[in-house]
Amino acid sequence: MPRPVLVQKFGGTSLGTPAGITRVGRRIAASQRAGYDVVVVVSAMGDSTDRLLTLASRVAKEPAARELDLLLSTGEGVSAPLVSMALHELGVPAVSLLGFQAGIQTDRRHAKARIVGLTPARIERELAAGRVVVVAGFQGIGDEMEVTTLGRGGSDTTAVAIAAALKARACEIFTDVRGIYTADPRFVPSARLLRRIAYPEMLELASAGARVMHPRAVEIAEAFSMELHVRSSFHAGPGTIICSEEAIMEDRNRVRGVAHEEHVARLSVVGVPDRPGIAAAIFAPLAEADIAADVIVQTASHEGVTDMSFTVSSADGPQAERILQGVARDIGARTVLSQNGLAKVSVVGSGIRGQPGVAATMFRALSERRINIEMISTSEVRITCIIDADRVKDAVAALHEAFKL
Amino acid sequence: MPRPVLVQKFGGTSLGTPAGITRVGRRIAASQRAGYDVVVVVSAMGDSTDRLLTLASRVAKEPAARELDLLLSTGEGVSAPLVSMALHELGVPAVSLLGFQAGIQTDRRHAKARIVGLTPARIERELAAGRVVVVAGFQGIGDEMEVTTLGRGGSDTTAVAIAAALKARACEIFTDVRGIYTADPRFVPSARLLRRIAYPEMLELASAGARVMHPRAVEIAEAFSMELHVRSSFHAGPGTIICSEEAIMEDRNRVRGVAHEEHVARLSVVGVPDRPGIAAAIFAPLAEADIAADVIVQTASHEGVTDMSFTVSSADGPQAERILQGVARDIGARTVLSQNGLAKVSVVGSGIRGQPGVAATMFRALSERRINIEMISTSEVRITCIIDADRVKDAVAALHEAFKL
Repeated sequence: MPRPVLVQKFGGTSLGTPAGITRVGRRIAASQRAGYDVVVVVSAMGDSTDRLLTLASRVAKEPAARELDLLLSTGEGVSAPLVSMALHELGVPAVSLLGFQAGIQTDRRHAKARIVGLTPARIERELAAGRVVVVAGFQGIGDEMEVTTLGRGGSDTTAVAIAAALKARACEIFTDVRGIYTADPRFVPSARLLRRIAYPEMLELASAGARVMHPRAVEIAEAFSMELHVRSSFHAGPGTIICSEEAIMEDRNRVRGVAHEEHVARLSVVGVPDRPGIAAAIFAPLAEADIAADVIVQTASHEGVTDMSFTVSSADGPQAERILQGVARDIGARTVLSQNGLAKVSVVGSGIRGQPGVAATMFRALSERRINIEMISTSEVRITCIIDADRVKDAVAALHEAFKL
Repeated sequence: MPRPVLVQKFGGTSLGTPAGITRVGRRIAASQRAGYDVVVVVSAMGDSTDRLLTLASRVAKEPAARELDLLLSTGEGVSAPLVSMALHELGVPAVSLLGFQAGIQTDRRHAKARIVGLTPARIERELAAGRVVVVAGFQGIGDEMEVTTLGRGGSDTTAVAIAAALKARACEIFTDVRGIYTADPRFVPSARLLRRIAYPEMLELASAGARVMHPRAVEIAEAFSMELHVRSSFHAGPGTIICSEEAIMEDRNRVRGVAHEEHVARLSVVGVPDRPGIAAAIFAPLAEADIAADVIVQTASHEGVTDMSFTVSSADGPQAERILQGVARDIGARTVLSQNGLAKVSVVGSGIRGQPGVAATMFRALSERRINIEMISTSEVRITCIIDADRVKDAVAALHEAFKL
């Protein structure tokens, strides 16, 4: 009978040094001894990605995405064989595979490719031969054998996709934190580790700034009903299981966590002639420049004109403003305003659905601390407020208290 | 009409820093402006291979060759896209390709793979689109998409193989010396740069310790009659052209150069029963351990026993001795002796063929300086003497003078 498959993903901080790699090797060896066929997905070692980006910035002002993908993919090309060697040293048969060898097929959108297929034949053959398979995360192969990378958090996505393709028993994401908390423990010392969180909640938390898991990985996990187990590389402990809402018995009707994101800028296109297609005219050029507009608010039209405001990350602010100046001219808008130094704070939980009391509690908690709300946006399971960046720590603490997390 | 193809290979010292990479980029750009379709082959940056080997040694005592190949191949995976980015920055369209993308097919002998085929379709397509193609040297792809490396000097081999496959007009090997000299200029200040040298001479020089070109690259060049132009990355100057003997007008009947190699050990299996198959019994186990036996001398058989002596590189000495102890027991030889601290000194030139005077001159020159000859070996175009390592500098100078180089 085939052994159950376990996928374990290790991030860069766990793999920062040869000693760290050996420690990871011992953990993998223990999983294999426990009776699993183990597939390991690794990120690049420690700060190696930053080092490569620095090199690139010193030969070119704006390195082409295609070449950058090739360059950055070497990070995992280093860590994967090193983990395999560490396993050999522990007497564990192992083989490392780059993305193209592991059958990770993607589209050709360099720097943010999406996995479009996975041919696990080679992985399965190696597992059947009794080997631990160490896969270089974050990378794949597109048409014409072009090397691609999956963007930030891409190794999580690799792990989940492999787990889904192999119908793994479990997919463990080892990281430098102990799991998913009700809020950032650096901001809220009383923040509580969540034992379970539902996919949509995790998605909203991740999109709202909680950096533990990449949203794309959570989406794939949900699509394949693959439970994810987020745990610490450095400490024992239960961690957090990301699963379907049905699998969560406790706390069905509550706010589950508070997320935040600093470094937010707001842009407003003022005096926009209100006619069909105007939103596309504004956002398409931004999307082309790969700038994600986040919270979007359109004011009610008044005398045929409207204002369109939205947030972007601070880093994208100047470029977005430049683009919008052109757009504003083209569509006959009055002017473009921008404001930096903002932050996003969100409450997330499936309990938000259909409970207007949650929003009221959130707004009251912020107002009691005299924190001004600049913009509001909501989804089924999330309420987000844009506030002054200076107040984000206060806001997170206030909300954590107000919702008794 | 298609433009002529020029292949240019750049070694690690030229690519050691971002500034060096930009400098290489300017040289390539000039070649393209001069009317060539340019294919560039690059080695890993500066000391990056050593850095990767150190990492490997810190996670495993004897890293598996397969995993080491994957690890080391990332060195060229870094330099190739950086050179491509530097070209973009100079306004030159360029694309970098890893070994598997460039169609470099090899056998599966990890760490010393041989190129068995080359499918240049992708390279040709990129050239036709007006791009400089930057190929990661030293690496290829074997069966089952296994990444392989070609061993020391492998990037030279990549360059020559591509030049042959594309029927290039020329293949330039940029290195940190000005070309091929009549002797090591650090030993013989009056050493002269050779303008031309024949393939067999270069092969013998390379095998005899001249480290500028890898023998395998010279072999392929000869097989395809591809002239190689060895030149300095750092200085202008004519360099040395490696070509057929017919193409050399000057100095047809002379010794062309003196080569040397330090760090040589001698091993002797003493009292070997002289019967067919005995040489294979001795050398097959060494070959399996990947130890190259170099100068081999078998004494005349006396009363049914013989002595077999040969040299290996000092680094391989202890392991070779261990292996031979076992072999000696098995074949009933008397004992194994080993001696370290030796060196090889050779004179090379097609003029050696059929001219016994050359050997006599060599032996006399050494004896006049009271340098003892431990072993002698000859080929069509080379005479090698094994001597004490302490005397190698004297010996090279003496031979350089005796042959009026």
